[in-house]
Amino acid sequence: MRDVSIIGVGQVPVGEHWDMSLRELGYGALSAALRDARLERIDALYVGNMLSGELTGQEHVGAMIADFAGLRGIEAVKIEAACGSGAAALRIGYIAVAGGLADVVAVMGIEKMTDKQGSTVTSALAMAADGDYEALHGLSFVSINALLMRRYMHEHGYKKEDFAPFAINAHANAMNNPNAMFHSRVTPKQFIEAKMIADPINLLDSSPIADGAACVILAPAAMAKEFTNRPVRVRASAIATDSVAVHDRRDPLFLEGGAISAHKAYAMAGVGPNDIDLFEVHDAFTIMSALSLEAAGFAARGKGVGLALDGQIGLDGRIPITTLGGLKARGHPVGATGMYQIAEVALQLRGEAGAGQVSGARLGMAQNIGGSGATVITTILEAS
Amino acid sequence: MRDVSIIGVGQVPVGEHWDMSLRELGYGALSAALRDARLERIDALYVGNMLSGELTGQEHVGAMIADFAGLRGIEAVKIEAACGSGAAALRIGYIAVAGGLADVVAVMGIEKMTDKQGSTVTSALAMAADGDYEALHGLSFVSINALLMRRYMHEHGYKKEDFAPFAINAHANAMNNPNAMFHSRVTPKQFIEAKMIADPINLLDSSPIADGAACVILAPAAMAKEFTNRPVRVRASAIATDSVAVHDRRDPLFLEGGAISAHKAYAMAGVGPNDIDLFEVHDAFTIMSALSLEAAGFAARGKGVGLALDGQIGLDGRIPITTLGGLKARGHPVGATGMYQIAEVALQLRGEAGAGQVSGARLGMAQNIGGSGATVITTILEAS
Repeated sequence: MRDVSIIGVGQVPVGEHWDMSLRELGYGALSAALRDARLERIDALYVGNMLSGELTGQEHVGAMIADFAGLRGIEAVKIEAACGSGAAALRIGYIAVAGGLADVVAVMGIEKMTDKQGSTVTSALAMAADGDYEALHGLSFVSINALLMRRYMHEHGYKKEDFAPFAINAHANAMNNPNAMFHSRVTPKQFIEAKMIADPINLLDSSPIADGAACVILAPAAMAKEFTNRPVRVRASAIATDSVAVHDRRDPLFLEGGAISAHKAYAMAGVGPNDIDLFEVHDAFTIMSALSLEAAGFAARGKGVGLALDGQIGLDGRIPITTLGGLKARGHPVGATGMYQIAEVALQLRGEAGAGQVSGARLGMAQNIGGSGATVITTILEAS
Repeated sequence: MRDVSIIGVGQVPVGEHWDMSLRELGYGALSAALRDARLERIDALYVGNMLSGELTGQEHVGAMIADFAGLRGIEAVKIEAACGSGAAALRIGYIAVAGGLADVVAVMGIEKMTDKQGSTVTSALAMAADGDYEALHGLSFVSINALLMRRYMHEHGYKKEDFAPFAINAHANAMNNPNAMFHSRVTPKQFIEAKMIADPINLLDSSPIADGAACVILAPAAMAKEFTNRPVRVRASAIATDSVAVHDRRDPLFLEGGAISAHKAYAMAGVGPNDIDLFEVHDAFTIMSALSLEAAGFAARGKGVGLALDGQIGLDGRIPITTLGGLKARGHPVGATGMYQIAEVALQLRGEAGAGQVSGARLGMAQNIGGSGATVITTILEAS
């Protein structure tokens, strides 16, 4: 097996791109990543996407984006694992390069959501849940997360406002990210007064629907210096699954897929949580930040919210999270999100995060979650 | 790179499975393949599927099927390349095993289509075409293929009835396949009198919508004998892409993706068309059989139909095709089709095709096509 490096990073700013088609979003991210790597050709393209069929009437986006980018002929497929599709695409590209079946591959995450009405998008997103046992009975993603958050508050003795630091931190960090959807700070007062969506989840617990595409180029570490003087090593990429339906979990408040995936990744990289300098959590809702911190070993059970309350998640905290805005403020174009997380960790490790830079960051981690934890992909990157 | 073998094969009969859910279809194929390989655990599951979201309201099928099969925790994702999804999943599994990142993986193709009205399914299938430049203007898959067939007849001087041998051969061969959807012979008279769908394509040029799931288990060739005394070697698996829109091709009557994919596969296996003992073509429509035979080098340009007219595609012909019924008569559950093709080639090479056995078959090939040629996956298998 070969070591693998990220040699190029490209992002389209997250937002409402009513003037760009799916193929244009994909081309934007791919061409930026190719320019960053000073490359024109790649061996393969793996496109993470969840809802292109449901929301834009287009499947077959692998071939479509490859052709539109002038790469007709190459291997190209779509990878889907609900909101975990982006990092799942990285895992497939990692397998191809590490195993020696390809040298230079592009891995992308892409989603276009804002052309449709909110109710249509909410129904489409529910396809990440169990269709027969959750969605059919009217559970949406926000309501599933509301049930989890309410139970967490009950079990561990937290109040609603204790979740505020996750949103405040994400919005503060997004101020430093030109590709973030929101550039507006959130105050504790705004958080507690925000419009209720599904009690106890309010608007500021929730990440926004968005359009976006992000892409990184992978190559064998031994070749990386041909393309860039700032390669970022992929130390681990690991997928684990759990039940799709939350009621079928051994413990609904523990992300078993997150724990297995993190343990696999730590084993691959030969590191532990104490070695990680920053952690991009999948904060689709504030409760997911807490559960991810706990599953990945940064906080004991029931202590994820406490870590945030103690001020330990900021850029100079014990474990900086959502360092460039997270899903909450960078935005959550679902199938693209995992790749934005990875692109952001890579920029941190290249020292290119601007005013959002985590000082001295050497080892960064991202955890991308499909559904409410049924697929979890943990990626560990290292500066070189 | 390690040599890879198929150590288990499982199929659900193709048909209208109104009494089985998506997860039950998937479990049926996966459990049969695991039994065939005398296995209980696998390292990963790659699920080829196109339309689970559009037709059953369920994305995230990788995790769902893994959990329902009692494999909670393992790596599992969905792979999508329109009607090429099945063989694309095999390609991803092949990469993982050949590269040494996994030992034993299951690769599946699955689709559930018949719960919905035909018009809904036709619209969903059009998502394999170019949404902006084909589907938006009312082109369905049958109409795209009708344009290709009409042009082929004009360019190469064939009549409509010259395409009959493809349908007659497929239906005759399906008689020997217990997993085929149709067990009824077709006569030349029936073919020419069949109901017109989109002139010149009639009902008997067209493969049926269906439900189904097929699965094979992959392992390193060096380990294969631990599981089975009839391993089948994967000599090649290669994906190539072309434009999604047919009007954007250099020549609409030449499957450039099919040619590139076949050439890559021949190079991987170190063989040529003359070495192949049987060839599973992607006969979604009869015209695709001709174009695939030509792209893969079994017939010169414009001679694919002639090969069939000359009686060379039967079980004892120069190049037997659709040996267990093809898409036309085994049925075409789109995202599952590529895996049915591979399962059928594997059974031929194990000598288990019953009365449909191609005598002395050592080297078999399948070509699985996404859209009207935008993704083509060529797989070459060898008896061991």
